[in-house]
Amino acid sequence: MCSRGQIPVSCMLRPLEAPFRYLFGPGPSNVPPRILAAGGRPIIGHMHSEMFGIMNDIKKGIQYAFQTSNNMTLAMSGSGHTAMECAVFNIVEPGESVLVAINGIWGERVAEIAERMGAKVHTLFKTPGGHFTNAEIEQALAKHKPVLFFLAHGESSSGLVHPVDGVGDICHKYNCLLLVDSVASLGAAPLLMDQQNIDILYTGSQKALNAPPGTAPISFSERACHKMFNRKTKPVSYLLDMTHLSNYWGNDGKPERKYHHTGPVSGFFALRESLAILAEMGLENSWSHHTEVAEYLWKGLEDLGLKLFIKDKDLRLPSVTTIAIPEGYDWKELLAYIMKHHQIEFTGGLGPSVGMVLRIGLMGYNCNKANAAMALAALEDALKQCRKSKA
Amino acid sequence: MCSRGQIPVSCMLRPLEAPFRYLFGPGPSNVPPRILAAGGRPIIGHMHSEMFGIMNDIKKGIQYAFQTSNNMTLAMSGSGHTAMECAVFNIVEPGESVLVAINGIWGERVAEIAERMGAKVHTLFKTPGGHFTNAEIEQALAKHKPVLFFLAHGESSSGLVHPVDGVGDICHKYNCLLLVDSVASLGAAPLLMDQQNIDILYTGSQKALNAPPGTAPISFSERACHKMFNRKTKPVSYLLDMTHLSNYWGNDGKPERKYHHTGPVSGFFALRESLAILAEMGLENSWSHHTEVAEYLWKGLEDLGLKLFIKDKDLRLPSVTTIAIPEGYDWKELLAYIMKHHQIEFTGGLGPSVGMVLRIGLMGYNCNKANAAMALAALEDALKQCRKSKA
Repeated sequence: MCSRGQIPVSCMLRPLEAPFRYLFGPGPSNVPPRILAAGGRPIIGHMHSEMFGIMNDIKKGIQYAFQTSNNMTLAMSGSGHTAMECAVFNIVEPGESVLVAINGIWGERVAEIAERMGAKVHTLFKTPGGHFTNAEIEQALAKHKPVLFFLAHGESSSGLVHPVDGVGDICHKYNCLLLVDSVASLGAAPLLMDQQNIDILYTGSQKALNAPPGTAPISFSERACHKMFNRKTKPVSYLLDMTHLSNYWGNDGKPERKYHHTGPVSGFFALRESLAILAEMGLENSWSHHTEVAEYLWKGLEDLGLKLFIKDKDLRLPSVTTIAIPEGYDWKELLAYIMKHHQIEFTGGLGPSVGMVLRIGLMGYNCNKANAAMALAALEDALKQCRKSKA
Repeated sequence: MCSRGQIPVSCMLRPLEAPFRYLFGPGPSNVPPRILAAGGRPIIGHMHSEMFGIMNDIKKGIQYAFQTSNNMTLAMSGSGHTAMECAVFNIVEPGESVLVAINGIWGERVAEIAERMGAKVHTLFKTPGGHFTNAEIEQALAKHKPVLFFLAHGESSSGLVHPVDGVGDICHKYNCLLLVDSVASLGAAPLLMDQQNIDILYTGSQKALNAPPGTAPISFSERACHKMFNRKTKPVSYLLDMTHLSNYWGNDGKPERKYHHTGPVSGFFALRESLAILAEMGLENSWSHHTEVAEYLWKGLEDLGLKLFIKDKDLRLPSVTTIAIPEGYDWKELLAYIMKHHQIEFTGGLGPSVGMVLRIGLMGYNCNKANAAMALAALEDALKQCRKSKA
């Protein structure tokens, strides 16, 4: 039958090709050989006891990376967006109020997700690069009485690391849970889930953790668990229902883990290895290392006459640096030149920051001064070659 | 701060350990070195042009494997359940009727997913091992007037391969779309999406395709596209919204692919390799090879005095064989013995077939007579060692 089939498959008889790239954008970042090797190991079954052991290790590794003792800690079988939807779907019931801080793309996404599942969505808004004071947040909480407040710690589209101190306490004063996105910041900028009273925290595997994309650590506080396990309606997604996921991860205290879905075994192997590397290095060392390399990069960029998009040093994300697009240049041309001649990926803006910034990410394995110097040299070359005439 | 942290991470300082296992259950199956190597390659960005080239190859490979010329063909960033939710979320609007054939676990899951998103769910029911006649299906379609009918082609919980001929035509007569699950059957049992008038077909990466779990091919007919792209409400999931996914996969005819989520780059490398292996072998060869090995296994099982759960040979799934649990044995003890002494995974039933069957899967790379002989020898040994006294 297939021989008479209409479907040509000649392209599949060529070998797989993928060029080497320096992934110095906002992620995914290069995966070190040790993590690639872990992800390339022969797999075992998703329900084997040894797999549960590896998942237990991942849980401990996330607890360390998040600085939390939350029992309800696990990794999603999907990217950061899966964790984002999981948080909203499980915590919020249709008709409930949600407050979303939008100062870049991630707040936009959470607002869209919450709207689709039937929440009443209220927003706090700043243009990219802006941030919210605790007074502004408190005022909005008092007004809208949301059950959930979303804040991006690492707003990678603008290069901003948002202050989190005190926000959890304000949320709890208004009986609201605090949901924080640390996809771009985890391991690069200080964040202490328990000390900072964050109720739900998630990240991605492919940023400072340097694993391939496809898994996403997430953790829920006791307070968050109380809300999500005492809801009246079932979450709209069976796949993301924490009742089932908590059992799959051995977090619900039941003696038996039941089949829910088939987790990404290779992805979990890689994630475990990436969390092990962070544990070996130590969180504080990782934070200070990212800051040191970022400061070296920032100085180099200023020496090239470029303007950093985030003026206040303390608000700059150490993992993803944003540069105001220099006058007299086409940003797409700069990026294409650097990719073609230096095999380096930088990126433009994302969502509301498109056309405003260039972005350089040096995360985890990629985060060192040699790479920063290579990035600066490539940019210097591009600035020489790509200047537009004034005409 | 971390040095004062409450979180022990000593477990993360041990190396990752995973034993070798013969994965002769219903999946995941063993991943051959060639696919492991593809998945272990250095990654590139999820939005690089070469990545789009690889995704284009994957699309062609799925079109071949499904025998479809559907433009709307892609791989989900998730396991088979992600494809299942994607199909239901995009095709059905709240309040619409859905008809689900339940003769094992997969129909149960689809019914649950459809109920959660607000569909009116009607079911056709058989106990595990049962199947539906086209007359029964037509009667139910006429009665319930659903917009979508679900049928599992490979019902891996019972070991049944369901006849599909004619079902698409009946569905279309009643203005209903046909959704088919081929997670356990693709590449092992004949299925021709276009010829059989299937509107939505999905599978998983980790069965006969032998890639690690975490990606799921799916395809939509023109008819299905017409329904899902002319709906009044947005699908409840942003992550699974086919408007965005079709753009990400270059299927919507727009010149630019926009960032939606970060796809599992390593998983796509591995999936491309697995589809290439199937294309090299040829679908018809793959089908006949699975049948030949399955018949060898079935004869061997009967020679051991065991009873196959599916009596009619033509209804037996060639990829997953179900055996009635032999009298005088504890099925959990048999499985544990075989795992301990032979490093082989077989499994028990799943969902409604728990306690009714043992399951042996020989899929793709694992599908050969040497493995079948090894499985039979292990089972023979276990039958000798694990007999219960009659007391």
